[in-house]
Amino acid sequence: MGTKEGLDYFFNAKSIAVIGASREPSKVGHVVLRNLFEGGFLGKVYPVTPSAQEILGRKCHARVTDVKDSVELAIVAVKAELVASVLRDCARKKVKAAIILSSGFGEIGRTDLEKEILDIASRAKMRLLGPNCLGVFDSFTHIDSMFLPEYRLARPKEGGIAYLSQSGALGSTTLDWAAGKQIGISKFISFGNASDVGVSELLEYLGDDDKTKVIIGYIEGVKDGRKFYEAAKKVTRKKPVLILKGGTTQQGSKAAVSHTGTLAGSAKVYEGMFKQSGIIQVHSIEDLFRFARALVDQPVPSSNKVQVITDGGGYGVIAADAIAKSDSLQLAELSPQTIQELKQKMPNYAVIGNPIDLTGDADAARYQNAITAALKDPNVDSLVVILLYQVPSVSSEIVETLVETQMQSNKPMVVVSTGGGFTEVHTKYLESKGVPVFNYPEEAVRALDALSKYGAINRKNNNSHSPALQFLESKPSTEKTLKKLRTAKKKKR
Amino acid sequence: MGTKEGLDYFFNAKSIAVIGASREPSKVGHVVLRNLFEGGFLGKVYPVTPSAQEILGRKCHARVTDVKDSVELAIVAVKAELVASVLRDCARKKVKAAIILSSGFGEIGRTDLEKEILDIASRAKMRLLGPNCLGVFDSFTHIDSMFLPEYRLARPKEGGIAYLSQSGALGSTTLDWAAGKQIGISKFISFGNASDVGVSELLEYLGDDDKTKVIIGYIEGVKDGRKFYEAAKKVTRKKPVLILKGGTTQQGSKAAVSHTGTLAGSAKVYEGMFKQSGIIQVHSIEDLFRFARALVDQPVPSSNKVQVITDGGGYGVIAADAIAKSDSLQLAELSPQTIQELKQKMPNYAVIGNPIDLTGDADAARYQNAITAALKDPNVDSLVVILLYQVPSVSSEIVETLVETQMQSNKPMVVVSTGGGFTEVHTKYLESKGVPVFNYPEEAVRALDALSKYGAINRKNNNSHSPALQFLESKPSTEKTLKKLRTAKKKKR
Repeated sequence: MGTKEGLDYFFNAKSIAVIGASREPSKVGHVVLRNLFEGGFLGKVYPVTPSAQEILGRKCHARVTDVKDSVELAIVAVKAELVASVLRDCARKKVKAAIILSSGFGEIGRTDLEKEILDIASRAKMRLLGPNCLGVFDSFTHIDSMFLPEYRLARPKEGGIAYLSQSGALGSTTLDWAAGKQIGISKFISFGNASDVGVSELLEYLGDDDKTKVIIGYIEGVKDGRKFYEAAKKVTRKKPVLILKGGTTQQGSKAAVSHTGTLAGSAKVYEGMFKQSGIIQVHSIEDLFRFARALVDQPVPSSNKVQVITDGGGYGVIAADAIAKSDSLQLAELSPQTIQELKQKMPNYAVIGNPIDLTGDADAARYQNAITAALKDPNVDSLVVILLYQVPSVSSEIVETLVETQMQSNKPMVVVSTGGGFTEVHTKYLESKGVPVFNYPEEAVRALDALSKYGAINRKNNNSHSPALQFLESKPSTEKTLKKLRTAKKKKR
Repeated sequence: MGTKEGLDYFFNAKSIAVIGASREPSKVGHVVLRNLFEGGFLGKVYPVTPSAQEILGRKCHARVTDVKDSVELAIVAVKAELVASVLRDCARKKVKAAIILSSGFGEIGRTDLEKEILDIASRAKMRLLGPNCLGVFDSFTHIDSMFLPEYRLARPKEGGIAYLSQSGALGSTTLDWAAGKQIGISKFISFGNASDVGVSELLEYLGDDDKTKVIIGYIEGVKDGRKFYEAAKKVTRKKPVLILKGGTTQQGSKAAVSHTGTLAGSAKVYEGMFKQSGIIQVHSIEDLFRFARALVDQPVPSSNKVQVITDGGGYGVIAADAIAKSDSLQLAELSPQTIQELKQKMPNYAVIGNPIDLTGDADAARYQNAITAALKDPNVDSLVVILLYQVPSVSSEIVETLVETQMQSNKPMVVVSTGGGFTEVHTKYLESKGVPVFNYPEEAVRALDALSKYGAINRKNNNSHSPALQFLESKPSTEKTLKKLRTAKKKKR
């Protein structure tokens, strides 16, 4: 059975049995049912329990084998000791995949129970997610096995970021945070003990998933390093993969053993493996999302030279410092023609260099001139635009100018805007148009650094004649095609 | 004239003349007037301009010398060329202090104009702030010379953090951001070219200011290193000083020269000077506020051993990693008694170590037991409490338990809560009670690291028999006194 077909049922099943359904609102088997009913899942849902006739107005079945129609996916929320018998029923019913939410397996030493359920599933060619996990949230199909109520844990909107987490709590709570920040997520997967489906297979699946543009993940360790490495190498040719690894210190590793039972392994070994396979390792939870926001919407820069444009001098200084300290970025040097052109168009007190300081009375025209000139300068690969809305000369229409100006170009741009409510209104507009906005220059520069690193990974892959490159090389005028695609994508938003 | 008396007029003047007042809503001289009238300033305000009879319903005076009553502070918003003659009038009127908002002085090469106004002020013993600055915002007296309208730039509420900025734009926009985050600020000062009053004198003034508990600042360079060092050494004995220095790289320094004309100097020299004078150097704008939030409300730890308490294992791993990587912190080792006690009180699947993992069904009682035990353990100096509200076992009342439990102790505690709207409600409550809450473990640990560094600075100062220590030593039972003070302070909130 290929990965694609096997794993697809977790995200695209047309019929789901919730086994261990409950009338009790606080129980897992109740919350999952409610989320499926109220969350917008369009397929069929079958509550399975011997202890109720009806839950939330739907008829219950005592066993999954009592369901008349076919069942593609089972979500299992019964005690650990009962999971095996439930799975035997699922095997008989020819259920394709099962998410085992129940805990009480390998993580507390009951490897016997875990082996038993894995054997049942293998014999039946049924794929398992879990046990001891939150399972799946898919923003498109609304398959949702996270047993936490929506009012406590908001679900994010549709988007291009897929999110894998070895820790259910860390994954789900950051998902809730992302929902609050209007960050779109294609799929979230908490895989728990990963007795069957693990991070490597999920990575490959998401690599082929059209809805997913960027993959991010939290892991403490992988069981099969070679398999993971091969999967990552394949996937990073197609899209960026960002990983936060927990347990990069001795103290953190010790905590990871108590947590997921993972031997977190040497930080250096993982670091090398990530690097070689084209994974971008990030070092904080927030950076996972920061970097993903830039990578999901912005084009990949062709090299590492950054131009800073600002209306506040101090921010320019901080941005220049951050670029100088970054792993991969450098300050661009504007070409003499660009400097000439800008000097003609700007007031004499504006500073034409890097940063370009448009000064505190900058208006939309000044920004447009500077951005246009920088984007067409061959010495510039990407832009950090610092845009402070507090000064009255910056009219609200500037956000439209910004979006239009960047659309003319294939170079990435990130924006920095610091402030309260007035600023946020404009930030939301820009982000809705695919321009990532950050509160502070340091964050924006780090995100651009990730973009630049992914650009380098891309070029390395292309130079080694990857299939992707061969495909591109066979097309005439690739750049124009890409540009059209990009414009079309932007318009669709 | 002592610093205190001289500088006090910038923050506590009872009468203010706005020179260069204007009827035109977009003009600086109009916005400043409006902010004084509408912002709650209780003293007298005199619009001064020869070109209007009345502005916003108030009678105008052609010159400041025409005002009948005394004028303590002048806010000057006329063209650079006119500032000298305006200041001569101020000198005649015996104005005590003047904020020169106007630009067009040293920063564009007109050092002659700057020298002229400084001479006038010195002869008249009038103190000058600026030129080329935003001046002052005082949240208590509502003196506000920031010429940006409130709807674009929100003013923060009263609080214990004073904020100095060499960059007006950076300072004011982050102030706006702080207002949105409900961070309280005692005073904000943008000092621009600092031709008279500069960062050293302001530091000393804020060191003596009862309303200010923590001082934060953005600077690109200081003119008189020795003076700054001496001031800092004095002030850091009284309260924490956090500085973000712009221009710590060659590229950033170059930008700083264009921006404030400051020779940013060697990063290493500043680093050494900050360290020796007891200043905590921070490396990002966000950290300035993160650290200040922890320092303003939490007690100083007696050493660097941190206990982590969590209901999510992955967060525990990340926190342990962050502590191991921090500059000054270490993971605490619970005493055998504490371990014994907690094992009796906790379910057997809870992990009693560091982190203490209360696991996903933790409730308020489990948190209370763990926090109480850790706070009284002599091996523990401070706490990181990770509290995820997404699981139903965590009831909302837990926030009250948390605040009460910590009040029994003199050890600092920071909280990590990640999530959307539901989480934010609880976060706001905790912060209103002086418990700093962070989105992610990495931030919380960095803030605690700053607290621990300040603890070390404090101990070093005390060991060298500072006057502060002598004062403390002369009191019996200092610790109890401090505890009482602290409890009283908390209750007042």
